[in-house]
Amino acid sequence: MTNKAVFMHGTNDMIWKEIPVPVPEDNEVLIKVDVVGICGSDVHYYQHGRIGDYVVEGDFILGHECAGEVVEVGSAVTSLKVGDRVALEPGKTCGKCEFCKSGKYNLCPDVEFFATPPYHGVFANYVTHPEDMCFKLPENVSNMEGALVEPLSVGLHATGMGEVKLGDTVLIFGTGCIGLASLLSAKARGASNVIVVDVLENRLETAKKLGATHTVNPKERDVVKTVEELTGGRGADVVIETAGVAITVKQTADVVKRGGTIVLVGMTAEDETSFNFMKLMGKEGQIKTIFRYRNLYPTAINAIASGSIPIKDVVSHEFDFKDVKEAFDFVVNNAKDVVKAVIRIN
Amino acid sequence: MTNKAVFMHGTNDMIWKEIPVPVPEDNEVLIKVDVVGICGSDVHYYQHGRIGDYVVEGDFILGHECAGEVVEVGSAVTSLKVGDRVALEPGKTCGKCEFCKSGKYNLCPDVEFFATPPYHGVFANYVTHPEDMCFKLPENVSNMEGALVEPLSVGLHATGMGEVKLGDTVLIFGTGCIGLASLLSAKARGASNVIVVDVLENRLETAKKLGATHTVNPKERDVVKTVEELTGGRGADVVIETAGVAITVKQTADVVKRGGTIVLVGMTAEDETSFNFMKLMGKEGQIKTIFRYRNLYPTAINAIASGSIPIKDVVSHEFDFKDVKEAFDFVVNNAKDVVKAVIRIN
Amino acid sequence: MTNKAVFMHGTNDMIWKEIPVPVPEDNEVLIKVDVVGICGSDVHYYQHGRIGDYVVEGDFILGHECAGEVVEVGSAVTSLKVGDRVALEPGKTCGKCEFCKSGKYNLCPDVEFFATPPYHGVFANYVTHPEDMCFKLPENVSNMEGALVEPLSVGLHATGMGEVKLGDTVLIFGTGCIGLASLLSAKARGASNVIVVDVLENRLETAKKLGATHTVNPKERDVVKTVEELTGGRGADVVIETAGVAITVKQTADVVKRGGTIVLVGMTAEDETSFNFMKLMGKEGQIKTIFRYRNLYPTAINAIASGSIPIKDVVSHEFDFKDVKEAFDFVVNNAKDVVKAVIRIN
Amino acid sequence: MTNKAVFMHGTNDMIWKEIPVPVPEDNEVLIKVDVVGICGSDVHYYQHGRIGDYVVEGDFILGHECAGEVVEVGSAVTSLKVGDRVALEPGKTCGKCEFCKSGKYNLCPDVEFFATPPYHGVFANYVTHPEDMCFKLPENVSNMEGALVEPLSVGLHATGMGEVKLGDTVLIFGTGCIGLASLLSAKARGASNVIVVDVLENRLETAKKLGATHTVNPKERDVVKTVEELTGGRGADVVIETAGVAITVKQTADVVKRGGTIVLVGMTAEDETSFNFMKLMGKEGQIKTIFRYRNLYPTAINAIASGSIPIKDVVSHEFDFKDVKEAFDFVVNNAKDVVKAVIRIN
Repeated sequence: MTNKAVFMHGTNDMIWKEIPVPVPEDNEVLIKVDVVGICGSDVHYYQHGRIGDYVVEGDFILGHECAGEVVEVGSAVTSLKVGDRVALEPGKTCGKCEFCKSGKYNLCPDVEFFATPPYHGVFANYVTHPEDMCFKLPENVSNMEGALVEPLSVGLHATGMGEVKLGDTVLIFGTGCIGLASLLSAKARGASNVIVVDVLENRLETAKKLGATHTVNPKERDVVKTVEELTGGRGADVVIETAGVAITVKQTADVVKRGGTIVLVGMTAEDETSFNFMKLMGKEGQIKTIFRYRNLYPTAINAIASGSIPIKDVVSHEFDFKDVKEAFDFVVNNAKDVVKAVIRIN
Repeated sequence: MTNKAVFMHGTNDMIWKEIPVPVPEDNEVLIKVDVVGICGSDVHYYQHGRIGDYVVEGDFILGHECAGEVVEVGSAVTSLKVGDRVALEPGKTCGKCEFCKSGKYNLCPDVEFFATPPYHGVFANYVTHPEDMCFKLPENVSNMEGALVEPLSVGLHATGMGEVKLGDTVLIFGTGCIGLASLLSAKARGASNVIVVDVLENRLETAKKLGATHTVNPKERDVVKTVEELTGGRGADVVIETAGVAITVKQTADVVKRGGTIVLVGMTAEDETSFNFMKLMGKEGQIKTIFRYRNLYPTAINAIASGSIPIKDVVSHEFDFKDVKEAFDFVVNNAKDVVKAVIRIN
Repeated sequence: MTNKAVFMHGTNDMIWKEIPVPVPEDNEVLIKVDVVGICGSDVHYYQHGRIGDYVVEGDFILGHECAGEVVEVGSAVTSLKVGDRVALEPGKTCGKCEFCKSGKYNLCPDVEFFATPPYHGVFANYVTHPEDMCFKLPENVSNMEGALVEPLSVGLHATGMGEVKLGDTVLIFGTGCIGLASLLSAKARGASNVIVVDVLENRLETAKKLGATHTVNPKERDVVKTVEELTGGRGADVVIETAGVAITVKQTADVVKRGGTIVLVGMTAEDETSFNFMKLMGKEGQIKTIFRYRNLYPTAINAIASGSIPIKDVVSHEFDFKDVKEAFDFVVNNAKDVVKAVIRIN
Repeated sequence: MTNKAVFMHGTNDMIWKEIPVPVPEDNEVLIKVDVVGICGSDVHYYQHGRIGDYVVEGDFILGHECAGEVVEVGSAVTSLKVGDRVALEPGKTCGKCEFCKSGKYNLCPDVEFFATPPYHGVFANYVTHPEDMCFKLPENVSNMEGALVEPLSVGLHATGMGEVKLGDTVLIFGTGCIGLASLLSAKARGASNVIVVDVLENRLETAKKLGATHTVNPKERDVVKTVEELTGGRGADVVIETAGVAITVKQTADVVKRGGTIVLVGMTAEDETSFNFMKLMGKEGQIKTIFRYRNLYPTAINAIASGSIPIKDVVSHEFDFKDVKEAFDFVVNNAKDVVKAVIRIN
């Protein structure tokens, strides 16, 4: 077994290294990585070397959307065996702080998250991971789908925090991978109407294929007026903002229904955004934000396995591991066309 | 316009009467009734003349699952017009008690509910009803489906109170109309696995067609063991009891997961049932009960319109209004075969 | 019985008129008004003639915080009798819209609210009001306390929406009547620590007397640093903003704990406020807003009667009805000293 | 340092042994035990050698309600230091199962709980315990109060699961330590009325002193009728059953309000209890059960420190460690008089 890994080497560059095959601790398994998705955060690190306070230092392995096969198990592992295929939930948490104990482990201040400096990611042949963060994939869920559980979990968390429920009208700003994962999640939770807003016509087409009941292109139509028409003047029960643009963040207050919920998911370039809280207050609306996700891998896998969520349809591009740098460069240069690119490691 | 109505006339008998076409009050509409479903409670009144403390006195009009067409509107009506097709939510509530004001209007002690003595039901050509309890049906929802919104709302309330969510495993005892409505509701809310238990093989077939992932016939297999196998020893996240039998009520504690929820829907013949609360306590399980439903007609109509819930598939028998007595007698004599019988009024 | 009422007559002016004693409808009672509180909104109308889209036209009766004695009952009234003392919940709602039916009647678009144009308020000797919006006061709750149920309900709603619970640390921006009502409500809901922030030292003293465990004057200490010290670096579980100032709205994101909740209550002068949603997202914090209150009069009365909430301690000034104009002018000119002024009508 | 521990030695007997002072692991602390409460479960093991499936084999150390002083810290411990006084939460959980990860760690199937066979308890001079399960006591909370955090947490969990809120009427069956802890918890959460039911008059006196607004002795008055009178015919918002008697379990359905919640806490001698689910269904009532508690030690300590919960008032008897056998025998023989007995270890 040789373990080749690709490291970002300064910005916009990558180098290959052979690293030791890691040895699983008692409660860990060794995974032969099969599929890794490229996330927007990977690309951002690749281009800029940092996201906010998280700064890449030295050569750094990216990648945190991952599935593969168990090839060795630690001595204390009981629920997994060699040959099992698993999706890897990327954050290792302390299990002891008040957030971990109360079920909000995504807020654990000591989390070690794949590909968030200083913790390396998974663009390698082999990685180890704790047994309890490796979720077995049933026969009818592929490794590709397993890797997509990660972004899907963001959509599931957004719609879960927004309490999307059967019969709801949901409005989603943005058609990136997270926007579409939110769309699929909203549909799977029973939303009757999902309105998707974006300026990219090809993406709106994809949204339609994935189940959007209406799409709105702000270049062609006034968003607020259109939503008013589509909802009989009532607005959307839940508004999910994944575009991360000041104008759409602001519009959430216009399109949300009285008593409705806005979920902010998209990262804006600027820290501060102007917002009309007075308008929101007149509706008694609320704003929720999400940070990653929690306790959703089993839900995601069940939903994929049962056919509720055809998550593989978000994949627009596939690359071989040897072409990983080309893949990153392609994504950088074709942001509008790429919904989700994945790398086949083996 | 003549208004013929059929009254139960003592038990197991019916007579026809022509009654005045009612005149809608300011906030009411006059509806030409089109489809009325026969509910188990209708049949129970027909056979026994009472349900618990509710006693039929004199000739009495049954029927509360109903849809039809608006043919006249009161002076204050704004949201409906002549020609609209509507589903009628059968309970008129006071709007002023603490239950009404806090959104639990189904618990209003002063509710006037169709076909619950002393309030007549809707087996007639024309009825009046408050505008706000008449829900407009979109073009792609038929009057038949409109009439089925009532039993569907029970299933929606059961699954809503049980907080069935995406990815859940749900176990349903009973395959009557409410059991199947619960099955459809659980699926629409995103349940990945729905296990249905009943002794009637033909009904289990129907359950399968409607989306049950597993069916269990207690005559053939031990229910508790089978559920253990099907759930990897964990039990069901939510257990919905619609059979109303002592043995299944008791089994809910066996098959529910740690921390899981039981929803009791079925009416048992005996008031008191033996239950192992110690077992439930060891799991920190909870029991919810439901009384009718609330705020679910819009949800039901949205879910039918969007294709999430094919409620019309529960209809097993249709009759003409003129044959309504035959219909009731048929239901009485063929309880095992009839899932839902509906009457075409016009 | 003569019914004298005071009308605002243009801005900053008032005139007296004798108006007919209103006749209660079937479901209404006639109330001899005893105590009316002066709310910030009353003062704002008095000075500016409008609040947002609500514009006073013609002579207009202010006042909506009110208690008095039932002196006549409509024919359908059953729960109240002559001689009962009651607190009046000021909003009459439709009872039929989706908001009313789902328990969020404060969001009813057709609400008729005392002293919100075009609906007159209660600065008069007699008013009628629906039975179900008049809440009987027990012997040990005075009419003065009854009038204060209205602002207290805002504090109860803020802390209820914020889900303040036993043991929590709550931070409150602002020490106006609503800030102090929020403080009292937070304490009554079991908050262990309540930090109150304001620039007015005399108000901070009042907050201390009412149970604030810590007070912070931003003129003297950095708010964010101080809160960090007071909470061991963790922030407040719930942050309630009642000051309505851009800087404090912004600071809510700094002082709220990971996973915590901000409740916006104060109306800002400007519609748009700059806010750091990225910071909030890093904590997965949420923002709730409130619009008036709902279903809280019984809670408030119970809490006052049981001694949990000494709401009368917020009253800083009392005036006779004949001096009502002087009272308004005093409040306008002494905003910093007046927490709550009330008018004795009789 | 010598470590003396007392072991139950068959039923109704105890022997002393000197055992090694345990050595804390990296994430553990060594505690010099100061106060240990005697729980009903300790007494049950002492008398019967088992509770359900949990069977004592060989000599066994009882005791799980405990506080003491940190005398040594493991190498990885950061939040505690020698000299800190702490309350010990008795259950060590896996941190990795779905229950632990979702915040319901009390349902962890692999929990190791003090004094639940095969895990020894804390009637010893020294014990080790994980840092994260040791909660530092502030200066104004004594070790005695620290030991009482355990039973208080049960009352907090019961009232938390019952969602007791400000203004509520709560009915508590039973005045043992858990009944009184529930009473104190209900008051601290803002309940306006707490009705306590028991047949022991001296205990009802204690309940009154601790804040019960009404007490009912079923030997003197009909419970159901009395509660009807006390609540104006409405019943209690929340009913907490701690007596564990078939008749009181059954009565919960009679005294709970429409839409109300029953919390079952008391263990009944018989597994099966007869219950009128039909009555509960007519009210749409719900039943919650609790298993121990979770995430409540900080809440309890905050509430004690802030004066909200005078938990030390439940202590009726104190004994020295050397008299621990006499203490157990006393509790066995004076069950009606002993609310809570505690042992002073040092």
